[in-house]
Amino acid sequence: MHMTLLDDTELADELQQELLGTIPLTRAMQLRVERVGRDALLLAAPLAPNANDKGCAFGGSMASLATLACWGLVRSLLLREGMVADIYVQDSQIDYLAPVWTELCAEARLAGDADPRAFVETFRSRGRARIALVATIDTGVDSQARCAARLHARFVAKRREEQP
Amino acid sequence: MHMTLLDDTELADELQQELLGTIPLTRAMQLRVERVGRDALLLAAPLAPNANDKGCAFGGSMASLATLACWGLVRSLLLREGMVADIYVQDSQIDYLAPVWTELCAEARLAGDADPRAFVETFRSRGRARIALVATIDTGVDSQARCAARLHARFVAKRREEQP
Repeated sequence: MHMTLLDDTELADELQQELLGTIPLTRAMQLRVERVGRDALLLAAPLAPNANDKGCAFGGSMASLATLACWGLVRSLLLREGMVADIYVQDSQIDYLAPVWTELCAEARLAGDADPRAFVETFRSRGRARIALVATIDTGVDSQARCAARLHARFVAKRREEQP
Repeated sequence: MHMTLLDDTELADELQQELLGTIPLTRAMQLRVERVGRDALLLAAPLAPNANDKGCAFGGSMASLATLACWGLVRSLLLREGMVADIYVQDSQIDYLAPVWTELCAEARLAGDADPRAFVETFRSRGRARIALVATIDTGVDSQARCAARLHARFVAKRREEQP
């Protein structure tokens, strides 16, 4: 249990360490936590280890990066309050709109109707809470960039049983 | 272009070589093509490289394996007719129903309303065709196994421009 509250840079470091340390595929993807804010979380990964047979980004890498960006935002919502949880994705819908030929960057935000305070308070009182998020991946970072993939996902956080 | 028609074992070998050879993440996942049939395609991957922070299967690995199983079935539909295509996933919906604590196995089938002959004939005549598939991952292979994840996905096949 984290007893001190973390700032955004500490949160980014903590999340990157946790992701790379506990999910082997994130190392293969060469995932980086680019930025953690209150409203958004950004993950990045180079194209080469995430390419497909056509040389553009592999759909599975896009779905994984988008899902992890959402997971990280949920994690950070709770870490900011000094709470840890087991966080599971329940379902997701992804639309692949355009190929990506550059480094991948996934930005997660809460869904429009998600209430982060209600989520945190429900988790605090009941040890279980749900929240919906959206993550997008653009085709690049230039002025011509457009949305390449959009993922909608619902997550559940469950109180973690502390190991003895 | 394949000028000879392949049997199921040759198709499985060809697909595994293609996946491992062109999509780096499949090597990190240690993906195997278990079986290719006319109606179903099975992919497998060990748990360890596909685990998450909780020690069960990572959602991104499950989504990737299920998507690739569908992709492989579309590929094999066309290869059986001696045709190659660039095959893209357009959108997918995945429900995560239970954690997986064993080796992952994803089975792809055509969606109930998909017509493989119409797909092949449309692709042959127009160079572009769409088809819907479903892939499932069970919690294990024993009698207690239940569905751990179900993915619905739509794919488009486009005639590949031959490189000079």
